[in-house]
Amino acid sequence: MDIADRIKADPAHWRLANAIRALSMDAVQAANSGHPGAPMGMADVATVLFRNHLKFDASSPHWFDRDRFVLSAGHASMLIYSALYLTGYEQMTIDQIRNFRQWGAITAGHPEYGHAEGVETTTGPLGQGIATAVGMAIAEEAMRAQFGADLCSHKTWVIAGDGCLMEGISQEAIALAGMQKLGNLIVLWDNNDITIDGRVSLSDKTDQLKRFEASGWRVLSCDGHDPADIDRALTDAASGKDGRPVMVACKTIIGYGAPNKSDSSGVHGSPLGAEEIEAARKALGWTAPAFVIPEDILADWRAIGARGKDARAAWNARVDGAANRDEFARRISGEVSDKLAPTIAALKAQALESKPKVATRRASEMVLEVINPELPETLGGSADLTGSNNTRTKDLGIFSPENRKGRYIHYGIREHGMAAAMNGIWLHGGFRPYGGTFMCFVDYARGAMRLSALMGLPVTYVMTHDSIGLGEDGPTHQPVEHLAICRATPNTLMLRPCDLIETAEAWEIALSNETTPSVMALSRQNLPLLREDAGENRTAKGAYILREASKEPAVILMSSGSEVEIAVAARDLLEAQGIPTRVVSVPSMELFRDQDAAYRKEVLPKGPVRIAIEAAIRQPWDWLLLGERGKEKKAGFIGMTGFGASAPAPALYKEFGITPEATVAEARRLLG
Amino acid sequence: MDIADRIKADPAHWRLANAIRALSMDAVQAANSGHPGAPMGMADVATVLFRNHLKFDASSPHWFDRDRFVLSAGHASMLIYSALYLTGYEQMTIDQIRNFRQWGAITAGHPEYGHAEGVETTTGPLGQGIATAVGMAIAEEAMRAQFGADLCSHKTWVIAGDGCLMEGISQEAIALAGMQKLGNLIVLWDNNDITIDGRVSLSDKTDQLKRFEASGWRVLSCDGHDPADIDRALTDAASGKDGRPVMVACKTIIGYGAPNKSDSSGVHGSPLGAEEIEAARKALGWTAPAFVIPEDILADWRAIGARGKDARAAWNARVDGAANRDEFARRISGEVSDKLAPTIAALKAQALESKPKVATRRASEMVLEVINPELPETLGGSADLTGSNNTRTKDLGIFSPENRKGRYIHYGIREHGMAAAMNGIWLHGGFRPYGGTFMCFVDYARGAMRLSALMGLPVTYVMTHDSIGLGEDGPTHQPVEHLAICRATPNTLMLRPCDLIETAEAWEIALSNETTPSVMALSRQNLPLLREDAGENRTAKGAYILREASKEPAVILMSSGSEVEIAVAARDLLEAQGIPTRVVSVPSMELFRDQDAAYRKEVLPKGPVRIAIEAAIRQPWDWLLLGERGKEKKAGFIGMTGFGASAPAPALYKEFGITPEATVAEARRLLG
Repeated sequence: MDIADRIKADPAHWRLANAIRALSMDAVQAANSGHPGAPMGMADVATVLFRNHLKFDASSPHWFDRDRFVLSAGHASMLIYSALYLTGYEQMTIDQIRNFRQWGAITAGHPEYGHAEGVETTTGPLGQGIATAVGMAIAEEAMRAQFGADLCSHKTWVIAGDGCLMEGISQEAIALAGMQKLGNLIVLWDNNDITIDGRVSLSDKTDQLKRFEASGWRVLSCDGHDPADIDRALTDAASGKDGRPVMVACKTIIGYGAPNKSDSSGVHGSPLGAEEIEAARKALGWTAPAFVIPEDILADWRAIGARGKDARAAWNARVDGAANRDEFARRISGEVSDKLAPTIAALKAQALESKPKVATRRASEMVLEVINPELPETLGGSADLTGSNNTRTKDLGIFSPENRKGRYIHYGIREHGMAAAMNGIWLHGGFRPYGGTFMCFVDYARGAMRLSALMGLPVTYVMTHDSIGLGEDGPTHQPVEHLAICRATPNTLMLRPCDLIETAEAWEIALSNETTPSVMALSRQNLPLLREDAGENRTAKGAYILREASKEPAVILMSSGSEVEIAVAARDLLEAQGIPTRVVSVPSMELFRDQDAAYRKEVLPKGPVRIAIEAAIRQPWDWLLLGERGKEKKAGFIGMTGFGASAPAPALYKEFGITPEATVAEARRLLG
Repeated sequence: MDIADRIKADPAHWRLANAIRALSMDAVQAANSGHPGAPMGMADVATVLFRNHLKFDASSPHWFDRDRFVLSAGHASMLIYSALYLTGYEQMTIDQIRNFRQWGAITAGHPEYGHAEGVETTTGPLGQGIATAVGMAIAEEAMRAQFGADLCSHKTWVIAGDGCLMEGISQEAIALAGMQKLGNLIVLWDNNDITIDGRVSLSDKTDQLKRFEASGWRVLSCDGHDPADIDRALTDAASGKDGRPVMVACKTIIGYGAPNKSDSSGVHGSPLGAEEIEAARKALGWTAPAFVIPEDILADWRAIGARGKDARAAWNARVDGAANRDEFARRISGEVSDKLAPTIAALKAQALESKPKVATRRASEMVLEVINPELPETLGGSADLTGSNNTRTKDLGIFSPENRKGRYIHYGIREHGMAAAMNGIWLHGGFRPYGGTFMCFVDYARGAMRLSALMGLPVTYVMTHDSIGLGEDGPTHQPVEHLAICRATPNTLMLRPCDLIETAEAWEIALSNETTPSVMALSRQNLPLLREDAGENRTAKGAYILREASKEPAVILMSSGSEVEIAVAARDLLEAQGIPTRVVSVPSMELFRDQDAAYRKEVLPKGPVRIAIEAAIRQPWDWLLLGERGKEKKAGFIGMTGFGASAPAPALYKEFGITPEATVAEARRLLG
């Protein structure tokens, strides 16, 4: 059927859908950059979704029980901006649409969480949206189990493109969702057969329906330009029939409505140009000027935006009447539990008594053992390294289709999918997720970890086996540059505690945080309790004097995590040789950077030789070693200059020269 | 059938297979760490493979036309070490087996390329092996097309576990291999239903056969402990029947032979213990002492190791008789073409004449336009950003099942899979791969990029849109920390050229390299030609004086890539104000670090104010700003402190204060 006949058959649909097309064409053209093809191709599916299925109230973007809508194909951002404007989200004015992709506008090139209300998560890096949506759907199931369907019962809708489905992370997401039977998760695949390079067949011939089915999904198809057929498929998808997540293959034409450029990669990522826009307007029967939506059409869209008002009011009434409404309110607010501080304080006091020599990964487990029973909002997990990451405490049941009250997720060997799901869990609300893997596999999770930082989500990465101390597994499993990677990433808190007390403090910081992800770097090997006080959270200063010199220090040894023990041993040797030596523990460079100049100077005064000790590369230490203004000082580094090796950890520390003796030798050399 | 009956039915097989089991148990026990479960579970499959199918000659590990064997489940390293020892690889002595996982041994915890001959690639980070094998199979097809089946015709065999198949990268690899119809690629899936956390069903219920089929694979199954059934499946798989790659699901029992611990996660990653080893020996009928292989069994294994001698001799004869044998020898040696230097020199000379103002991504294309026709060993590609990465030159046909002579690969939206495939292409031999994506998507490719560095493979990453200069696509697409990430990674050459001449020099360095991957960071936006000379490859120094100060410099401006233009403009402003200012271009910190102290001091003398200008975070610049010994200097940084934003590039440079004017102001402030 050609487009004119389609319009004739259902004008009520097409005037709505074409409003999305018109705004998308106009905004991309005005910005002279952007992606008109996908919004025009998916305008019909989005219209049917918003008009008939999505549970939302444009006047209340943060309504907890709304359906979540995730535009995984983030380059199609004008699709969501159009929908937000048309349905009447207050922030999304026509001026914002006009300023698409301009400095200061909330209409960024790709949807950015925190800019425009209604954007549920940042997308653009492909595959992130679908994997984040899996986390949202997990959180929805878990909240429903804890608070009942009266307070929590909604769907997560995803629009994904071919790029999302080609990225490996999509497989991790699909397999996890299928195994977990996330029946409220619905993926709408924009099956347009086009990528930037050309036809999809240039690089992929996967039968996507079969692939999703293989991972436990129900699959449906529809003509993505036939509103009745779309509605049929979405109705079926939303029925939650057999508990499986649903994928709907929507056969679309990219750039639909642009008569000369549609169905080609040319319409994917470039403005249509004035001439083609003119031709498209003609084909669509769209006569309004650029950026103008005729009043009657806008009114119809605004009515769609108000569709959810009654449902929201009913939900509000149910919440008001709920016995556990205060706890529910606390949970969905993300507020920090007032049980956190005393629980941590008690553990620290106890640690000071018992002085346990444990790996910090075990220390982390000891913290979780006291925290998890007190904080029902924690939702833990690991990418198949539960026993190594020490992430599961006894009180947490296993989250599964049979036990939605379980608070521990076996994410499988899927670091990237886990990280994205953690983002989604936080974004959904109700939980504070943490998840474990080896520090080295930051590499696998990077795409989603960066989005935690960019969006400002306080999720916690429990990264164990954080150095050559991992030992025999060898260089593929030994992080060397990963501390630097995390420290280089904006808005990321790297915490590398040296003992149980610092580990407890690190968790207190992580679980109190509201806008920054934390990366805990934890040791495989046992470490002594080095702290001699358990009052103040000194980790919160980022760096502090752990051992003072016997008199005016000649040497300052700085270190983090498992190497602080080496610094303390080296200090004792140096002091025995009459060299006054201070040890500064540096559990977090970011937090130290945030301290005022006076404190920093107090900890790291001018004058003494400075040596940093860390079983990793030097790069992030230079500013501490050399001073921000480079004042005269002598500086040394005891650490790694290349990859590690396979051998028992003690052999590695010796062979790579990360020892008290090597530190003493370096100090003496620098003292001259 | 229980194990005793199985042994009775085919003793000739079991004595061979149990030799692998015995060595694996003994070595893990001696090391007191490692993974006995997978080698014991896959011993039968491996035995049938080595005995009847794998084309190899243990006396000639580098024979080009050997079948490649990739142990994607790298933790099963004792499987390959056992096979190498048993078949008679010279390096793999019984002492090496005894020293499994010890300092200095070639028997690292996970197989490390370059340690033991016969290890075709480093594995351990899951999924890397299967994705690397795809690159090997691509290279095999391409070499066969260029030199004929007489010189190149072999298979790539992979053993993959559940972990490999859960990792997202596996989907990228599977889909690419299926689309490319890599009929010589055979994956043997160790279908043992166990992961570290327990049963696979805890985290995955994917129907793997259906999933592989969906991506264009032929799928087979076998009983992984029935040698006849294994042989049937492998024979069928190796037939190359219909051109599709083949996946064989081998139903196995993890730790097979250990009567009390098999079929459980307990046998995955821990030594069996003396008692269970004793019980296993009994069950297997294995009576020889630890690390001892009875002579007759060893003799049979050694005969297997010599099976390929005749085939190799015949191949040698064919090579000797081949018309193009010299070029073939050059290609498989990886030797640098002698056409490279003059081609680059000519381009540089021409650039100095025409002074083109082009983006460095376009400059890179101009280099490839002259290089690709001269160097038939280049094999280019992009992860679906061909037009943006400027990676395809006209002379390169598209590599596809229909055109194996094509030298351009549409990798699809699969950065991780592309990077791993590039590793495999180099490891196979015959080609120098390069591949493109946006710099920001280093995040997606990290797992494989780290292995390029760890293995020392001179592949080239063409990373365009390398800063906020990307503009409107916004912070998800703007690298900020990625230059730091690459610079923090050992054995990685980060090249960020500032104009066409530096870009040509960077390519010359990358294509001459033999042991280090190169990451080219290239601009989206146009840049003027700044170099005023085209003789020496000055980029090879890492940093050099691009513009000298009018007299003794008061200020030194250091910069890389697209910001060098800003440094030069700032210098002109400062000089106009009577402040003598030097500009140092820093295309590669790694190469500058390699220069002698005298040269470094000449470029960066003590005294002047130093300012670094780079649209990225400061971390990697500190050592240059502050000096390695922290001698007195005043240092400033003009760059980024957080994520970028969505807006046109000029607006971003202005808003983030990366301008000549801001540089001048900072210089004046530091001069006091």
